[in-house]
Amino acid sequence: MLDANEAAARVAHALSEVIAIYPITPASPMGELADAWSQKGKTNVWGVVPQVIEMQSEAGAAGAVHGALLTGALATTFTASQGLLLMIPNMYKIAGELLPAVIHVAARTVATHALSIFGDHSDVMAVRQTGWAMLVSNSAQEAQDMAAIAHAATLRSRVPFLHFFDGFRTSHEITPVETITHDDLRELIDMGAVEAHRARGLHPEHPVIRGTAQNPDVFFQAREAANPFYLAVPGIVAEEMDRFAALTGRRYSSFEYYGAPDAERVMVVMGSAAGAALEAVKAAVARGEKVGLLVVRLYRPFDKEAFCRSLPETVRSLVVLDRTKEPGSTGEPLYLDVVAALAEEWEGPMPRVTGGRYGLSSKEFTPAMALAVLHEDLPPRRHFTVGIVDDVTRTSVRYDADAWHEPEDVVRAVFYGLGSDGTVGANKNSVRIIGENTDLHAQGYFVYDSKKSGSQTVSHLRFSPRPITSTYLITEPTFIAVHQFGMLGKADLLHSTVPGSKFLLNSPYGAEDTWDHLPRDVQRTIVERELELWVVDAGRIAMEEGLGNRVNTVLQTCFFMLNQDILPLDRAISAMKEEVVATYGKRGPEVVERNFAAIERALAAMEQVKVPDAAPPPLRGTPSGALQDAPDFVRRVTAAMMEGRGDLLPVSALPVDGTFPTGTARWEKRSLASEIPVWSPDICTDCARCALACPHAAIRIKAYLPESLEGAPDGFQSKPSSGRDLAGRMITVQVSPDDCTGCGVCVDVCPAVGSDGVKALDLRDVLPRRE
Amino acid sequence: MLDANEAAARVAHALSEVIAIYPITPASPMGELADAWSQKGKTNVWGVVPQVIEMQSEAGAAGAVHGALLTGALATTFTASQGLLLMIPNMYKIAGELLPAVIHVAARTVATHALSIFGDHSDVMAVRQTGWAMLVSNSAQEAQDMAAIAHAATLRSRVPFLHFFDGFRTSHEITPVETITHDDLRELIDMGAVEAHRARGLHPEHPVIRGTAQNPDVFFQAREAANPFYLAVPGIVAEEMDRFAALTGRRYSSFEYYGAPDAERVMVVMGSAAGAALEAVKAAVARGEKVGLLVVRLYRPFDKEAFCRSLPETVRSLVVLDRTKEPGSTGEPLYLDVVAALAEEWEGPMPRVTGGRYGLSSKEFTPAMALAVLHEDLPPRRHFTVGIVDDVTRTSVRYDADAWHEPEDVVRAVFYGLGSDGTVGANKNSVRIIGENTDLHAQGYFVYDSKKSGSQTVSHLRFSPRPITSTYLITEPTFIAVHQFGMLGKADLLHSTVPGSKFLLNSPYGAEDTWDHLPRDVQRTIVERELELWVVDAGRIAMEEGLGNRVNTVLQTCFFMLNQDILPLDRAISAMKEEVVATYGKRGPEVVERNFAAIERALAAMEQVKVPDAAPPPLRGTPSGALQDAPDFVRRVTAAMMEGRGDLLPVSALPVDGTFPTGTARWEKRSLASEIPVWSPDICTDCARCALACPHAAIRIKAYLPESLEGAPDGFQSKPSSGRDLAGRMITVQVSPDDCTGCGVCVDVCPAVGSDGVKALDLRDVLPRRE
Repeated sequence: MLDANEAAARVAHALSEVIAIYPITPASPMGELADAWSQKGKTNVWGVVPQVIEMQSEAGAAGAVHGALLTGALATTFTASQGLLLMIPNMYKIAGELLPAVIHVAARTVATHALSIFGDHSDVMAVRQTGWAMLVSNSAQEAQDMAAIAHAATLRSRVPFLHFFDGFRTSHEITPVETITHDDLRELIDMGAVEAHRARGLHPEHPVIRGTAQNPDVFFQAREAANPFYLAVPGIVAEEMDRFAALTGRRYSSFEYYGAPDAERVMVVMGSAAGAALEAVKAAVARGEKVGLLVVRLYRPFDKEAFCRSLPETVRSLVVLDRTKEPGSTGEPLYLDVVAALAEEWEGPMPRVTGGRYGLSSKEFTPAMALAVLHEDLPPRRHFTVGIVDDVTRTSVRYDADAWHEPEDVVRAVFYGLGSDGTVGANKNSVRIIGENTDLHAQGYFVYDSKKSGSQTVSHLRFSPRPITSTYLITEPTFIAVHQFGMLGKADLLHSTVPGSKFLLNSPYGAEDTWDHLPRDVQRTIVERELELWVVDAGRIAMEEGLGNRVNTVLQTCFFMLNQDILPLDRAISAMKEEVVATYGKRGPEVVERNFAAIERALAAMEQVKVPDAAPPPLRGTPSGALQDAPDFVRRVTAAMMEGRGDLLPVSALPVDGTFPTGTARWEKRSLASEIPVWSPDICTDCARCALACPHAAIRIKAYLPESLEGAPDGFQSKPSSGRDLAGRMITVQVSPDDCTGCGVCVDVCPAVGSDGVKALDLRDVLPRRE
Repeated sequence: MLDANEAAARVAHALSEVIAIYPITPASPMGELADAWSQKGKTNVWGVVPQVIEMQSEAGAAGAVHGALLTGALATTFTASQGLLLMIPNMYKIAGELLPAVIHVAARTVATHALSIFGDHSDVMAVRQTGWAMLVSNSAQEAQDMAAIAHAATLRSRVPFLHFFDGFRTSHEITPVETITHDDLRELIDMGAVEAHRARGLHPEHPVIRGTAQNPDVFFQAREAANPFYLAVPGIVAEEMDRFAALTGRRYSSFEYYGAPDAERVMVVMGSAAGAALEAVKAAVARGEKVGLLVVRLYRPFDKEAFCRSLPETVRSLVVLDRTKEPGSTGEPLYLDVVAALAEEWEGPMPRVTGGRYGLSSKEFTPAMALAVLHEDLPPRRHFTVGIVDDVTRTSVRYDADAWHEPEDVVRAVFYGLGSDGTVGANKNSVRIIGENTDLHAQGYFVYDSKKSGSQTVSHLRFSPRPITSTYLITEPTFIAVHQFGMLGKADLLHSTVPGSKFLLNSPYGAEDTWDHLPRDVQRTIVERELELWVVDAGRIAMEEGLGNRVNTVLQTCFFMLNQDILPLDRAISAMKEEVVATYGKRGPEVVERNFAAIERALAAMEQVKVPDAAPPPLRGTPSGALQDAPDFVRRVTAAMMEGRGDLLPVSALPVDGTFPTGTARWEKRSLASEIPVWSPDICTDCARCALACPHAAIRIKAYLPESLEGAPDGFQSKPSSGRDLAGRMITVQVSPDDCTGCGVCVDVCPAVGSDGVKALDLRDVLPRRE
């Protein structure tokens, strides 16, 4: 069970001598893994430990790769987004000098009106003119396989390869991967090509000069002299794919067609969307529709003739989907390529081509959207968007979310957790346990927002009797777990859960009292959908077993108890315990025992809640009552984003240039700290470092006249100011518990320590805040 | 008389408040001029001196512009090539945030297999996806006018503009420019738009937040929210062009069609090639051919509908010329845009489109090539090159250089000089004098190679009764001047001179003896073409008048004497003297007097050489006798480049990856130093700094046993070594005169000074080397 980052990094590490890195989300794990492996002495397929160098930026990483290649070394790097942009000057040079190299990219949005750490193809499309071959992977398995093919093909062709896959959707999705052995990789690489590359390296014993300046007399001719190398690439890639198939049994080609042999309408896509598109096309073909799907795998050099040959002769219209936006262009890149390929190579009347944008910044692309796109040709639009509602320039295709439902025999489990509570780690673990202990195919995908530590995580786990190509989030879970009770009140987490599903809730209230603490809307959903509600006080067990706020072990145990039809409980528990030993063994037996104890207590502590027959009446009025005083923009836009309904905002709701009103954090109280700093006025020295250092602006210090304290609430703390400027005034250091994240920076900077070792600001446990 | 750099910089300076610069050829003069103007206190149209800031790189310049824009300032920068590549990340941000800005680019080749300082569109095409509008100028006049339109249109549209023109061909060509006044510029700018931009600037009194991170929920919608701004650009540009026409009388449009109204074949180009193409199309149409030319001016946003509307309905085939190469693509960018535009917007059967590459790295594009391209459709090739011989992948279109001759009434003067001899400066001067003192249209273009100081310069001057659109080098001069006698032996400079032309030669030998010192081939050409040979010893006059090696004043005087039909001599001389006063006046009356004296002496010193009736017999064997021992590559390739025949090398002659053999400088002796360092062994301290510092590796130091001096030639200098390691050995510091450029770096670093103030290595005049 691997994600694409690890799958690609394994191959890159095995086939390189020099690896220059600079971390950037979502490609960082590739560099981190390569670095860790070399630190541990892991060798490449030739028995050498690759040299991993972290540079000062991606520009430096590209320069280091360029330099290494010029000495005849095998070199690689990993990057994304702006990191890739910084490599552009070196990429032109590396390609111009016909140096074999591979850059592995977890494709990510380039920052425009706003930065985004999420995935689309705007970065890789920004380098399509540099002369690099481009090979695309649509899954972790393919990320491994295309990585191997890219390394093999670049050595034979001398054209450098950019190998990419979708950031997060593919880079971070965990699925079963048939791993390739070092023996097979060695078999794949043409050692003659490696030796030829070495022989071309700069060397004092057979000096040549590179990097000259050329004048108009010869530059143009020299630029055309490389043509034969580019013309040869598609053939070399095809040969390497064939050799790869002979070695591993997995067969690929530059363009892969799926669907009706007599299709009249064909969708063209690249990247992870191929998974969702394939499901849609299969369903449509099963209904007798004459549709098909063409997946592009070798994007550069683009073999126009092979592209046309891959299409059924019956095709009358194509819809090309691009995961990027180039404002002011005649069309997005893949669309332009398809139009040109048909104009040049299609025999007979040219099919009509339309182009759509989808999935910018990891926006979902689902089979329902793919179906809408396949059916969207009356009236025909040349350019459209799908996945959003564009009420401004009316580009968006309407889609019917109900047009697609996942097969009933696929287990679809969704878990809501916090960034630091261990939920994602435990779920990765569960995916691995089920993937390795059953015949089921498993998939794990994890949604973080970009607020990092302390923000919401959603884990999407699928278990299916068939290989899983569902490259989109679960919308209709058959199992749901909420790992933090407080999350229930903030967003509608249960709304699309399949009726009759099990719902696991981490609740401090026990089977008796939990129901009455649930928000009214949650109660209604549970009743209407006849959900089975199970509760466990994971926080108490974790705390009592000394596991702090990491509730994962308890809740993972409960997940396995509630899903024994997937994996018998005893096997699940023993696999969990093996994982505990592997993960915590080196921290000593005590930690292992604590986790074992948590597992045992979880088995005993989970209880089912009796759900009333009747639903309570719906609440009247707006659920975001607190926002009634907020400015219009906050009520219309920010509130929707806070409540997890940002996807539903239409284009008109968003600022045209990325400009947002300030001060909206006051309307978004995350209340996520489980420990907050508590002030001890008696030892405070008024230095104010805490307020200066707080990264969340959650600490304010005010000085005021003593008479202002009249009528202050009980427990309101204050002390006389010790500063000369504020003589005679009182001072209060006030922490805002709902804004504090419990990060502890204020405590770190506080210089005042009492005789008991407690600082003037020090973290204390707070009870979990309840509804 | 201005070049495009100055024309664009004038407008940019007049309409900006913040100008961030970082110099890069060929855009440097724009930054340098802006800097100098602000230093001198020159104001923009609002009476404010723009702040000019030189940054640490182009990345910094783009960042500074971005920052200035965010405060509501009017900001600009200038760049090219790799400089533009470093701006890409900020360009995405500036466009995404809808900040009005203009970058002026003197378009230059991006380094690939080799660096090139020359011009093509590979840099601007590498940023076409960033969301910037792109406006193209084809001449210095247009560079001024489009600069003004770009600044006006960006403010109204909020879409940033990249304004570009061809590096060197346009950036450095001097032609008459009708300059626009500050009043007209002020009239052109919409002050409401300026105020709106200011109001959007970040300001503590009305704070907003920019540069946020967005999640998948809203990024896509926000990215589409800017669509209306891009849709509006073509209309706004058209309106601004109309307002510009009303102000100045000069009318432009986004697409401009020339040629037959019933054309069946149309060429599409962008940039300076439009000049050569227009001449070809006019000639072909005059012969009754149904051809036309479409010039693209607003390249982004590309208005597909307007493009198709600009074409005659009769068109059946288009040939699209791109000045860039994107290996592995489906076609070059403009080609792809035209195919897409026709596929979407053309009514009726789609015309056939072919695409050609031309002019990479300032490769010539001539009317003869344009004619070949217009006629090249049987057999039809989808993709081709023109201007080279591609004997490898057979992409090149053959063209007949004889298919085009310049009109007889255009004076075409070509001057050969050295980088430091003042030739280019004097010729710029002559262009200005003739342009401003006659009714003739003048054009000056100057070819440098990238070896900088000390290398050959060729000045191409045209004077015509009509406006000059000839955006290519003079191939058939009607006047030729060789400012350095030694150049005659190195390359065939006279071969295409029009019979009967005047030939001015700077010769130290006088009218009597010059003939016998001419190379045999030169003698033959002069006789066969019946050239009038005039000589002057400009070197002697310059030296004797204390002007050093700057022979320009003398030779410029002779040029005017030989071309009195262009401008009466008395007016020319008085204009020259005015220029002398303007240029040298501040250095005192003595320098002015010296130049006046040189002019007077030149008038008296020029003599005509009597040319014999019969030509000498041709030499047998290879003219490059010295290369007979050279390696094959040097004889085939390097020699051709050295002799100025590099343009004729076919693709197969050039290395595929920029790799060249080392040590070829030994076959290229430039002998260009007029002063070389002379060694004084008696004061030398053996420190060896001279040899270490010499940038041309022209100084070697050897230690040897005294007996090796036996049989040494007279005058061979040596001294006993003063170092302990070399006790008992002799030492010689040897300068290679033919490799030395006379730069003086060795003298600067030499620490040993004799009692007379002369250093152990010191520059001394050497007599000009003769054939």
